[in-house]
Amino acid sequence: MSTNTCTISIHMVASLDGKVAKKDNSMDWFETTDHYENGVTGEDPEVFLQKIDCYVMGSKTYELALELSKQYGWPYGDKPTYVLTSRNLVSERNNIQFFQGGPEQFVNQILQPNYQNVWVVGGPALVKSFLSLGLAHEIRMTILPIILGEGSSFFQEISIEQALHLKDTKAYKNGMVEMCYQIKQ
Amino acid sequence: MSTNTCTISIHMVASLDGKVAKKDNSMDWFETTDHYENGVTGEDPEVFLQKIDCYVMGSKTYELALELSKQYGWPYGDKPTYVLTSRNLVSERNNIQFFQGGPEQFVNQILQPNYQNVWVVGGPALVKSFLSLGLAHEIRMTILPIILGEGSSFFQEISIEQALHLKDTKAYKNGMVEMCYQIKQ
Repeated sequence: MSTNTCTISIHMVASLDGKVAKKDNSMDWFETTDHYENGVTGEDPEVFLQKIDCYVMGSKTYELALELSKQYGWPYGDKPTYVLTSRNLVSERNNIQFFQGGPEQFVNQILQPNYQNVWVVGGPALVKSFLSLGLAHEIRMTILPIILGEGSSFFQEISIEQALHLKDTKAYKNGMVEMCYQIKQ
Repeated sequence: MSTNTCTISIHMVASLDGKVAKKDNSMDWFETTDHYENGVTGEDPEVFLQKIDCYVMGSKTYELALELSKQYGWPYGDKPTYVLTSRNLVSERNNIQFFQGGPEQFVNQILQPNYQNVWVVGGPALVKSFLSLGLAHEIRMTILPIILGEGSSFFQEISIEQALHLKDTKAYKNGMVEMCYQIKQ
């Protein structure tokens, strides 16, 4: 076994009721108008995003990101981006690759040898398999100050309990609360 | 209309995946073994609980609390406690009363004239009606450092969006993160 320096983080931005997408996939709820006096100002996204080596997502998240990119631009820049899917999809950008095997094979063959800082950005089905198979090292959850009331839930039932260790938490001026947990092995 | 000085808070303690009870109703997951170096030490519960004037719950939460009280003691002390139910339940303690009308009638007749600091402690169905009917003023959510993977979800789908204002957030030495939101009217 190679020395594992690859950290796989699951990243989610959700409403307080744990929803990550509205039924109509509209995105305006991401623009919070809240003001939290004691909050910190967000880190410069440029600096922050530089630390990420590659993105991983499922096919529906990919297709949604592609659809939304027409209006908002492609959110993952030029970083290598892997889409785990058994479908035959066409890559619309040079930095996007498809992987048709299972998540364990993907981690062993692609992520472990090549990347240190991996972000799994969804959707719920992919997150469920990464958690169920014990493939993720941390979860970064950001909660927006809103209850959506309906939509897709980030956490599907994984049917196993998973202890976590709180590594860090921050509240931002715009009312977002970020929590970073290590997944206990 | 009387001057409203009654604040109705919805209070929940949940896992990161939003579960408030395990299928077997066991409670050991509340005892976190986590340690968060930067966390604060919890307020003295005696001092904190003194601020609460009354508790409100649904009948299933009441029956569960009653069942668990055999092992852990009754968690709501001698504070007035109201159970909203259409069933004919028997009060096992002097300070427990049953209310058979709807939530709006209950708030107008019982809570508004008599109490300032009201805690709605669940379950999910009662919280859903308080949120849907716009009867609650704040939500206090405490997240424990665990994923339960299955069980009862605190937030049922309420089918309306609700904007929130982050009032306060704290992380504790035991890895719990508490967030307090005002429900925007």
